[in-house]
Amino acid sequence: MNTVKEFISANDLFAKHNGIELLEAGAGTATVRMQIKSYHFNAAGTVHGGAIFTLADFAFAVASNSHGRIAMGISTSVNFVKAAIKGTLYATAVENSINQKLASYTVTVTDDDAGTIAIFQGMVYRKKESFLQG
Amino acid sequence: MNTVKEFISANDLFAKHNGIELLEAGAGTATVRMQIKSYHFNAAGTVHGGAIFTLADFAFAVASNSHGRIAMGISTSVNFVKAAIKGTLYATAVENSINQKLASYTVTVTDDDAGTIAIFQGMVYRKKESFLQG
Amino acid sequence: MNTVKEFISANDLFAKHNGIELLEAGAGTATVRMQIKSYHFNAAGTVHGGAIFTLADFAFAVASNSHGRIAMGISTSVNFVKAAIKGTLYATAVENSINQKLASYTVTVTDDDAGTIAIFQGMVYRKKESFLQG
Amino acid sequence: MNTVKEFISANDLFAKHNGIELLEAGAGTATVRMQIKSYHFNAAGTVHGGAIFTLADFAFAVASNSHGRIAMGISTSVNFVKAAIKGTLYATAVENSINQKLASYTVTVTDDDAGTIAIFQGMVYRKKESFLQG
Repeated sequence: MNTVKEFISANDLFAKHNGIELLEAGAGTATVRMQIKSYHFNAAGTVHGGAIFTLADFAFAVASNSHGRIAMGISTSVNFVKAAIKGTLYATAVENSINQKLASYTVTVTDDDAGTIAIFQGMVYRKKESFLQG
Repeated sequence: MNTVKEFISANDLFAKHNGIELLEAGAGTATVRMQIKSYHFNAAGTVHGGAIFTLADFAFAVASNSHGRIAMGISTSVNFVKAAIKGTLYATAVENSINQKLASYTVTVTDDDAGTIAIFQGMVYRKKESFLQG
Repeated sequence: MNTVKEFISANDLFAKHNGIELLEAGAGTATVRMQIKSYHFNAAGTVHGGAIFTLADFAFAVASNSHGRIAMGISTSVNFVKAAIKGTLYATAVENSINQKLASYTVTVTDDDAGTIAIFQGMVYRKKESFLQG
Repeated sequence: MNTVKEFISANDLFAKHNGIELLEAGAGTATVRMQIKSYHFNAAGTVHGGAIFTLADFAFAVASNSHGRIAMGISTSVNFVKAAIKGTLYATAVENSINQKLASYTVTVTDDDAGTIAIFQGMVYRKKESFLQG
């Protein structure tokens, strides 16, 4: 568990490039954070859908890989419900279901005031290989 | 049309930060490109779902704003069908439907070999305001 | 509230045709039920995705119309996580967010053993008209 | 191919119960039809989202099972873009991608005037078993 958490934290270059940090990880759960910076904005001056997605997707990746087997995101959907402009965004993933092949997660993105920014639903395909085999 | 295209190209800071460029834009359509760099990778060594989403979302934003009125992405879903590892990715958005309030788009993400990487479906809410009022 | 609940219960002909009943409705919430019958099955002998969707969609409709203004479903996504074969299915909708134009809901479909069958995410566009104007 | 088409047509009890017919099936494709009847309506007097979904889902099932191996729908998303009121609805499924484990389809639902009613995106998990083993 810790190994997977540390491995992903250290090696997810896209999350790093975009200022996203892992706060907590458990069995099937994760909480991540992104302090809003100017490079997160779209042309309308609000946080880009891609930044919000990436934040949620990172929580989804950590939660779904927490059991040790490699989990690949195959399907996601997001409802964007409120524009984010400043402060810090958080994403928390919970596991809805898991079987040998597939697992499903809901990730909620909130702002500093606990206002909901987006709701993300994601499904992974679970490979037979464990995350760290070496 | 050109104004919107130029405005978004110049002001989408998140797309810039992640190396995404606008190639073409038309009425309800757009094609964008991302040359894969090391900072696009996830911990598994493939292009991050967030990078693929951001590429598709940028095409979606340009296409949906092409009519001049502000379009806000409210709902998106993505099927990730093949891992991307190297070369350049492209995303092309087409308009499925449009009315006064809502419009729907499909964006296909492909690699250099025209292999499909992801299929993105997105819906926007169209505000009454035009994109550039100043 | 009760009026909307009663109106939908009495007038949703497709839900009736498919044996779906409204159990409870509150502000932004609803619980519905479907006793599995032979006509709910697909060719594989499990409950049809369309039947599971219709069950969830009915809970979504009641919950989103509970505030009195007409709510039209514009976008939905479903993860199907377990086949259903016998007994009774339940769907419970909760409201994730609501503003003047849009609202978002999560609906969970469970079986008699409280096993999760599907997770549904839906967004509505809220019209200015109230549900019952006559 | 024909066997699968005939098998699904004969055995999809939920499609039958709701007046849905298979028109054509090919490798990874299918077209189906539903003549709108009073029992297809929701409380608002338009065709129920569940009926539109079921129509699309049936095309998706036929297309994804057309290769002979059992395909189970695991994730779907739908954009509902126009209300349907009368006449006949059609759904046509096309295959976006396919590999050993997963395949992805887009289904477009149209009315008699070729107006788009809904766009459906679906992913299946492909089992090792063939559809008809007996």
